Amino acid sequence: MTREEYIEQNKDRFLAELFDLLRIPSISADSAYKGDVRKTAEYTAQKLREAGADNVTLEETAGNPIVYGEKIIDPSKPTILVYGHYDVQPSVPDELWNTPPFEPTIKNGNIYARGACDDKGQFYMHAKAFETMMQTNTLYCNVKFMIEGEEEVGSTNLGSFVRANAEKLAADVVLISDTGMIANDIPSIDTGLRGLSYVEVEVTGPNIDLHSGTYGGGVANPINVLCDMISSLHDENRHITIPGFYDAVEIVSEEDRAAMAETPFSLEEYKKELDVNDVMGEKGYSTIERTGIRPTLDVNGIWGGYIGEGAKTVLPSKAYAKISMRLVPNQKSGNITELFQKHFESIAPKSVKVKVTPHHGGEAAVTPTDSKAFRAASKAMFKTFGKQPIPTRGGGSIPIVALFEEALGLKTVLFGFGLDSDAIHSPNEKYGLFNFYKGIETIPYFYEYFAEGE
Amino acid sequence: MTREEYIEQNKDRFLAELFDLLRIPSISADSAYKGDVRKTAEYTAQKLREAGADNVTLEETAGNPIVYGEKIIDPSKPTILVYGHYDVQPSVPDELWNTPPFEPTIKNGNIYARGACDDKGQFYMHAKAFETMMQTNTLYCNVKFMIEGEEEVGSTNLGSFVRANAEKLAADVVLISDTGMIANDIPSIDTGLRGLSYVEVEVTGPNIDLHSGTYGGGVANPINVLCDMISSLHDENRHITIPGFYDAVEIVSEEDRAAMAETPFSLEEYKKELDVNDVMGEKGYSTIERTGIRPTLDVNGIWGGYIGEGAKTVLPSKAYAKISMRLVPNQKSGNITELFQKHFESIAPKSVKVKVTPHHGGEAAVTPTDSKAFRAASKAMFKTFGKQPIPTRGGGSIPIVALFEEALGLKTVLFGFGLDSDAIHSPNEKYGLFNFYKGIETIPYFYEYFAEGE
Repeated sequence: MTREEYIEQNKDRFLAELFDLLRIPSISADSAYKGDVRKTAEYTAQKLREAGADNVTLEETAGNPIVYGEKIIDPSKPTILVYGHYDVQPSVPDELWNTPPFEPTIKNGNIYARGACDDKGQFYMHAKAFETMMQTNTLYCNVKFMIEGEEEVGSTNLGSFVRANAEKLAADVVLISDTGMIANDIPSIDTGLRGLSYVEVEVTGPNIDLHSGTYGGGVANPINVLCDMISSLHDENRHITIPGFYDAVEIVSEEDRAAMAETPFSLEEYKKELDVNDVMGEKGYSTIERTGIRPTLDVNGIWGGYIGEGAKTVLPSKAYAKISMRLVPNQKSGNITELFQKHFESIAPKSVKVKVTPHHGGEAAVTPTDSKAFRAASKAMFKTFGKQPIPTRGGGSIPIVALFEEALGLKTVLFGFGLDSDAIHSPNEKYGLFNFYKGIETIPYFYEYFAEGE
Repeated sequence: MTREEYIEQNKDRFLAELFDLLRIPSISADSAYKGDVRKTAEYTAQKLREAGADNVTLEETAGNPIVYGEKIIDPSKPTILVYGHYDVQPSVPDELWNTPPFEPTIKNGNIYARGACDDKGQFYMHAKAFETMMQTNTLYCNVKFMIEGEEEVGSTNLGSFVRANAEKLAADVVLISDTGMIANDIPSIDTGLRGLSYVEVEVTGPNIDLHSGTYGGGVANPINVLCDMISSLHDENRHITIPGFYDAVEIVSEEDRAAMAETPFSLEEYKKELDVNDVMGEKGYSTIERTGIRPTLDVNGIWGGYIGEGAKTVLPSKAYAKISMRLVPNQKSGNITELFQKHFESIAPKSVKVKVTPHHGGEAAVTPTDSKAFRAASKAMFKTFGKQPIPTRGGGSIPIVALFEEALGLKTVLFGFGLDSDAIHSPNEKYGLFNFYKGIETIPYFYEYFAEGE
């Protein structure tokens, strides 16, 4: 039986299994879902076993377990380390979902569910591609699976696990499907990822909530002050004002910028899809550059005072924000977090107190395009899409890429099949049936071409 | 029996009745408490009846009922219209209360409960003062009670009721206890109140929540933009930048400012009590002036993006804020709301959409100090406190004061017995037992001196 025939005959079961996986709300950011997170790990392990993996275990960590499994067909063959994550982002605001986030629903050829694309739908392609290769006797490489459960909260415990198990994880390349491509008819491969620095800030004014009539105008309002402070983090050109922030930023050559400008992209369509009249970003850079090669600062959440129905004339004691910075190669997450903290504390007026708490961070990474692995990926996509994939720079962060390089000396191929419009981290996240099956079809070619070598 | 003896003999019952009143959570801002709001009106009516009032009714409105009751002893005698409100502010954040907000608790001589001071404890003094005068045959004026249930949400339906019942409400003066005094040993009477303009703003960026890695830096983040817009509403001297905002502001004479500077006030104690290292406010004005005679702008609530536990790298579609402005005499609430709306829309970058929704407003008011009523109030306080009360300007808003003047031609006496430290609108609101009983003792003297005239 060919792989195509096997996939065709089993496609409904593949999808049903993914649906079961999507039904478990493995939200790692919220400790209320701890049990579901573990259930998801167990389900993942069970499915890897059924697909034919050996030595499948839940590797315990200080946090959520890492699912490990492997198939060593021949130690002299190349080994692929497949990384993915079974945890998902919170589903809030639930009321904006058209269908329940944890009841996968098919509509217009898409699977709607939290985690459909990020990353359950994508890592599960690897499990099913592996099963397919096993069942059709076409597995030409050794494979090791490492599916973690803390990617959405900064992969807190992955680093120590990887460092402690360097031998066990030894491989020739890391293969990750947790990114996207330009369009279903424009395949592309990410060659860079931004790093991340994520902090939470708390601004305290008076020690209790006050009446805004009695005290308004007389004491610092922590919300107004927080707005002032956040606003001051960008100048009028949308440059970030934190001293030293740009010091390490990699300068992209004019040639590379010219190459990026060739990427198929329509600003009009981009604006139309997001329903905005204009874009906003750093002066002197295109939208593709702003989201790919330039560091940014975004408020991811803000709260303070009365946010219920109606009106309350309170002058609150505290205001909060979650702020993240996307970093580019050479900027170090820890260093940027320190620069932020120092700066934010320094600009606080004497009338408030400020607390900065670092959340997780991650390093930016650039993946090589001149490697055997990249060429194998490129060739695999050409085989199934009929088009040469375009190398692109992704704006998101997968800190594990830098970690793999540092701890295991391994380069990564970002073999993503999602789309920007998949609304990952948002209500109504989706993943195309086309993309799910195309991934399962394409991945084995990567194994094949990678085994063949040059 | 003297009034003092009657109060002494009935003080425990007075307090028990107030506790029953405080136990009903009459939160007008939240429609979930609709039933409790009505129960509170019914309880208030019942107690006025028991105290000896005639024609007690719940006057239905499009919103919460107004409790009316009266005692006309002699049409040739002066008539006092007592105004108060039985609704309360929301109790959130409940976790910051040391005792349950709707289970009144006595500690260190204070009653802790939502509404203890604002305004249940204060309006109930009038009911019990009235009962005392009835039982001791010392009621020298006619009295009309009008206790409403929508003060905390802008007295939406009071205006039309007052206008439609001008004859029924005819009186010689309005008496309100819904403000404070400087200290228990420094009695004072508010002679001015600030007006209010309250709006809610919504800033929309992209049409759905986005991944901050994929889109961050490329599109307007509505939280960052909202912070920019809010920050721009004040200049570096904490002047408000809305064009025309100060046009109508009453200029207080140097003489009056010099008199205000004589008010007992310690900036060091003020800072210590609020636990702040510095105050913040409009350049060129003292703290007392900033909160009394100058208009202000405060954010009362802000929210947007992910505000749960942990980190979520979302670039949200929307961000919101509740913003209120305290106004001084001559500034018109409706006009200021329009100026705000126009300005806020004008400063929005093209990359976002802005919606401004007006909540309630109210007009500032100045009460006369050269009237028979003010002199009677002053004399009554002198009688029970042994000290001449100081005329002060209050920062809060009771829109009804301006409404009474306009609709009924009546001046108001702000006969408040609360303290700034009573934490109205905040967790752990309190009202002193001293203040509650002192009010019941003092109010009848006002009736007596007002009946006597000059």
